[in-house]
Amino acid sequence: MIIVLKPGATQAEIDHVIEKIQAAGCTPHLSRGVERTIIGAIGDEAALRLVPLEILPGVDQVMPIQKPYKMVAREFKPDPSVIGAGDVLFGGKRLHVIAGPCAVEGREMLLETARKVKAAGATALRGGAFKPRTSPYAFQGLEGEGLRYLAEAREATGLLVCTEIMDPRDLELVDRYADFIQVGARNMSNFRLLKELGTVRKPIILKRGLSATVKDLLLSAEYIVASGNPNVILCERGIRTFEDYTRNTLDIAAVPAIKTLSHLPIIVDPSHAAGRRDLIRPLSLAALAAGADGLLIEVHNNPEEASCDGPQSLRPEGFATLMEELRRLAAFLGREL
Amino acid sequence: MIIVLKPGATQAEIDHVIEKIQAAGCTPHLSRGVERTIIGAIGDEAALRLVPLEILPGVDQVMPIQKPYKMVAREFKPDPSVIGAGDVLFGGKRLHVIAGPCAVEGREMLLETARKVKAAGATALRGGAFKPRTSPYAFQGLEGEGLRYLAEAREATGLLVCTEIMDPRDLELVDRYADFIQVGARNMSNFRLLKELGTVRKPIILKRGLSATVKDLLLSAEYIVASGNPNVILCERGIRTFEDYTRNTLDIAAVPAIKTLSHLPIIVDPSHAAGRRDLIRPLSLAALAAGADGLLIEVHNNPEEASCDGPQSLRPEGFATLMEELRRLAAFLGREL
Amino acid sequence: MIIVLKPGATQAEIDHVIEKIQAAGCTPHLSRGVERTIIGAIGDEAALRLVPLEILPGVDQVMPIQKPYKMVAREFKPDPSVIGAGDVLFGGKRLHVIAGPCAVEGREMLLETARKVKAAGATALRGGAFKPRTSPYAFQGLEGEGLRYLAEAREATGLLVCTEIMDPRDLELVDRYADFIQVGARNMSNFRLLKELGTVRKPIILKRGLSATVKDLLLSAEYIVASGNPNVILCERGIRTFEDYTRNTLDIAAVPAIKTLSHLPIIVDPSHAAGRRDLIRPLSLAALAAGADGLLIEVHNNPEEASCDGPQSLRPEGFATLMEELRRLAAFLGREL
Amino acid sequence: MIIVLKPGATQAEIDHVIEKIQAAGCTPHLSRGVERTIIGAIGDEAALRLVPLEILPGVDQVMPIQKPYKMVAREFKPDPSVIGAGDVLFGGKRLHVIAGPCAVEGREMLLETARKVKAAGATALRGGAFKPRTSPYAFQGLEGEGLRYLAEAREATGLLVCTEIMDPRDLELVDRYADFIQVGARNMSNFRLLKELGTVRKPIILKRGLSATVKDLLLSAEYIVASGNPNVILCERGIRTFEDYTRNTLDIAAVPAIKTLSHLPIIVDPSHAAGRRDLIRPLSLAALAAGADGLLIEVHNNPEEASCDGPQSLRPEGFATLMEELRRLAAFLGREL
Repeated sequence: MIIVLKPGATQAEIDHVIEKIQAAGCTPHLSRGVERTIIGAIGDEAALRLVPLEILPGVDQVMPIQKPYKMVAREFKPDPSVIGAGDVLFGGKRLHVIAGPCAVEGREMLLETARKVKAAGATALRGGAFKPRTSPYAFQGLEGEGLRYLAEAREATGLLVCTEIMDPRDLELVDRYADFIQVGARNMSNFRLLKELGTVRKPIILKRGLSATVKDLLLSAEYIVASGNPNVILCERGIRTFEDYTRNTLDIAAVPAIKTLSHLPIIVDPSHAAGRRDLIRPLSLAALAAGADGLLIEVHNNPEEASCDGPQSLRPEGFATLMEELRRLAAFLGREL
Repeated sequence: MIIVLKPGATQAEIDHVIEKIQAAGCTPHLSRGVERTIIGAIGDEAALRLVPLEILPGVDQVMPIQKPYKMVAREFKPDPSVIGAGDVLFGGKRLHVIAGPCAVEGREMLLETARKVKAAGATALRGGAFKPRTSPYAFQGLEGEGLRYLAEAREATGLLVCTEIMDPRDLELVDRYADFIQVGARNMSNFRLLKELGTVRKPIILKRGLSATVKDLLLSAEYIVASGNPNVILCERGIRTFEDYTRNTLDIAAVPAIKTLSHLPIIVDPSHAAGRRDLIRPLSLAALAAGADGLLIEVHNNPEEASCDGPQSLRPEGFATLMEELRRLAAFLGREL
Repeated sequence: MIIVLKPGATQAEIDHVIEKIQAAGCTPHLSRGVERTIIGAIGDEAALRLVPLEILPGVDQVMPIQKPYKMVAREFKPDPSVIGAGDVLFGGKRLHVIAGPCAVEGREMLLETARKVKAAGATALRGGAFKPRTSPYAFQGLEGEGLRYLAEAREATGLLVCTEIMDPRDLELVDRYADFIQVGARNMSNFRLLKELGTVRKPIILKRGLSATVKDLLLSAEYIVASGNPNVILCERGIRTFEDYTRNTLDIAAVPAIKTLSHLPIIVDPSHAAGRRDLIRPLSLAALAAGADGLLIEVHNNPEEASCDGPQSLRPEGFATLMEELRRLAAFLGREL
Repeated sequence: MIIVLKPGATQAEIDHVIEKIQAAGCTPHLSRGVERTIIGAIGDEAALRLVPLEILPGVDQVMPIQKPYKMVAREFKPDPSVIGAGDVLFGGKRLHVIAGPCAVEGREMLLETARKVKAAGATALRGGAFKPRTSPYAFQGLEGEGLRYLAEAREATGLLVCTEIMDPRDLELVDRYADFIQVGARNMSNFRLLKELGTVRKPIILKRGLSATVKDLLLSAEYIVASGNPNVILCERGIRTFEDYTRNTLDIAAVPAIKTLSHLPIIVDPSHAAGRRDLIRPLSLAALAAGADGLLIEVHNNPEEASCDGPQSLRPEGFATLMEELRRLAAFLGREL
């Protein structure tokens, strides 16, 4: 931590800052210039972050130099983590595509979609049983019934299943049925839910919040890991900006940024980023080229009848064509799909 | 709903759209131009919103014309709602200031701060017992113990108390102690929590999410109201933008915008918007001038020792001076404080 | 400037950084911790900013501690600057409102609007002769003819006139007619134009760019001042965010922020911020309450016929009513209007 | 254009709107519902856009349905435009990389960098002679001298040259030396400059503004094309968001979006988007995968000595390695480099 003092800071003020640094277990180093005095606090910043140094008399600026997360940081574990369930592992040479409808709307549609995405090469099935919808009047999910259909689809196809959790009270139920537990963008900062997810061992797919920085996303992952579950897969799904042609703005640079900052796998959801079916193909290709470990794609066997996100859902045929192309690109990039 | 067809849309495509509109219980009105055909769907848009018209063949654009929320809309209830507890009612002539520390850190500090904000004219005490912190290593709140201290402070001062809820499982506990239940910015889209809050009658202070539009905020309020609790007080606390001088960007225009769009009261939290103590005064004055029904201000009896948000907390003396000024401004504006 | 080295930085790398600091005329101060070495560079950062220290081997982070602007900084001149023309001076006790149409559309409309805003209490007339329009098919302004109408309106009413410049080639012409030269948001980073404006003495009204931080705005002002013209009045007019209820998001906190950081006056343009007539009143009141030195308001004698920005223009009667209210608020705030 | 009337709109108000529509040469189509009346205005929206329909009595919302640009739209010219100089043509099967230093700092460095990027496979050389810098104290460019060095580098290497224009007064000079004229992000809305660029035939590389939507970018291109120069190449270089790990947020979806909306070529500048050297490789690969027609990359023979943008400049060796990889990816994608 660097503490920059105001031009006229008194000796008493400087001493007071030094005391606070020492009280937090860090060692102060003083640099006196003609105009400014600067104090470097050497040691573990974690304790020092809790002290509101900014408001001490004579203090002008406080600049942290350590990252606020630890266990998810690349420094903590230099090799990439390979995380998943069964043989659907993210972060290694092999890429995986999780595909399926936004919501589980019924047994038939789910089974049919599952068979088709499996045939096209997906290794896991997505489908919401609990749906976070901005409008209280929109379809809210089949809940337990939806989870049972997912399990049935796994049985029928061999696909692993991935579904979203919104409420800690559903954890036992979701944990019983799902192979991957997804935390949606709107719950990325639902810290109580994150802590609860630290108590299970299932891999968590943690989506980036609409206004979350990469640092915020890593801090949310740290919550889960620090609470006991090291199995976190990050997901870039677009951030909210002023651009309104797309539903969100896919921050493609977040993929290599996360690869640099963290050992955790990172996948991309082009469907929610774009919000329009015609952009899913180029965004999927770009995601792989940028180094993503996998994709999460919405596919619906009949988007016209979809209860949510129809406009951004691929039809199974379109998905099959895309998978062909992705498989070739993966091979070109030295990976497998 | 307006459906604009593509230049070359066929009669079969037009008929298909018309069928979908009728199936949703709306009446289609066709306008054929030389280049374009436009269909107006007259009736209740709620059902039509669930149909993914955008992806029907021949459709170019779909434009909703009704607001997606109902019960919180000004049209639903033309007179302003006056909402609160005891005689701390927001939305009428009288303004209220809720003040107190970010977190309840201990019994003494809370009681002392409570007495001082009461003396300065606050009518309710804020203080977090459950704290949403971006870092898992930051102080997370005293939980039940914190709630008991708040109740004790109410007993001692007569101030009503306002505290945040983060998890539906805490509702019974929080509802037992709090007079106002706060939903923080990071939980504005925690729809399960919102629904649960519809089952109590306590007034809910619903803070705007970091990347939520005014429409999103009203939809979240609709969740609570549609679930049975009409007592919602909205709170503007800044949105996330590229500007980094302040912690967030206070969207002052949201105050009159919400007054136009909704009958619910709207208050402003200048502390979280600014993130710096020196801006709280001008932002508080601006909020009142823009028509806010109240303020939520962080005050700590010893900000240097605060476990969170010290830099943005006023000291009791600064708060008392500000209250003097706010009281005069309120009177000038034809209101009372 | 603080240079934080990577954990394993070698002595040779440290020496190389130290050389660069000394070569730029600064003095290095070394703090060695167990994990990290930190170098504080004491002296004038301006020279050091030109050195890409970030890419020197062994360097992890570089953190500037001085502000990148000088002459516009509050430290450079502790007292507020009072800037303007004739007796229309911004930054003192007296507030001023500049009002008029978006564009000068014709002689009659300008004279009529001028007379009415004068009667209501405006002290300067705005009107664009050169118009920056996002569409090449929109009205682009009357140019020289518009400037002559402005001069005639000044003659007729005694109002000073304010008009926008878009091109350095128009400077001589605009300087001949205008009392205040406005730089629009889209030209805030047109650095060649800014430098040119340093060659005249007319007060410049510099509007904040749509994606400019407060720091960027102050740097643009520094361009003008450093080029020789100290007469700069800053103008907050909203930034671009994801919120689409308003045309832009008025950053009300920028007003007190600029008062803290700079000695230059700051005014607010509620018309462009809101983009809707019904929000101009609350935003104007909020601006004054937050400490603004004046306002820039669009008024059109017949908004229905306006060639641009009709929806955000007040009618003269609405403006007169608003001015009454602003005058009372100014008096309440200890200022005059 | 769709005009939605307020619930209680009177017949006189409806008639008034209809008159305005007819006066603008459009045909009104009325749809009366139980609650709402909607008027579709069929015909050329360009004239109607100039009428402030939003403020007519009884009008609730106005929704344009046509795009505001014409000549740059895909509908205007269904086949992609192939635009460039010599054999450096963008928009066809062949991709091109423009590489070189941020600024022309001297003769030697430019010639050396030019030779190296040529050897690596670049077909054009970038280098700023006029530099837009946010600080007035930063290096502003060698101006005419810089242009002459660029011409000499072209002579020596056969690379075409690309340089930025900031001021219409420099057009004759820049046009004499440059093969491609670049408009920087900060001048994308410098409409006077854009119009002036319509008077030459040189291809213009138009960079997206920091807060410009895709629609805004296309409107700026329309300015140039409508002014007489059809040779416009668009460039995505990142937009400003709250994410601060990167200098800007590369909006990768803008590439396929522009391919859908326009016939103009689109290239990507990963250097300014990222602001950090280590992200240039993944962003370049992603850009090609997303369909970009080329890249603009900063390369400096000695980034440590760069007068600007050193941290984001590749060294020639890094650039050569990247070009190898890009060449293979281009071939994989069915294109050439």
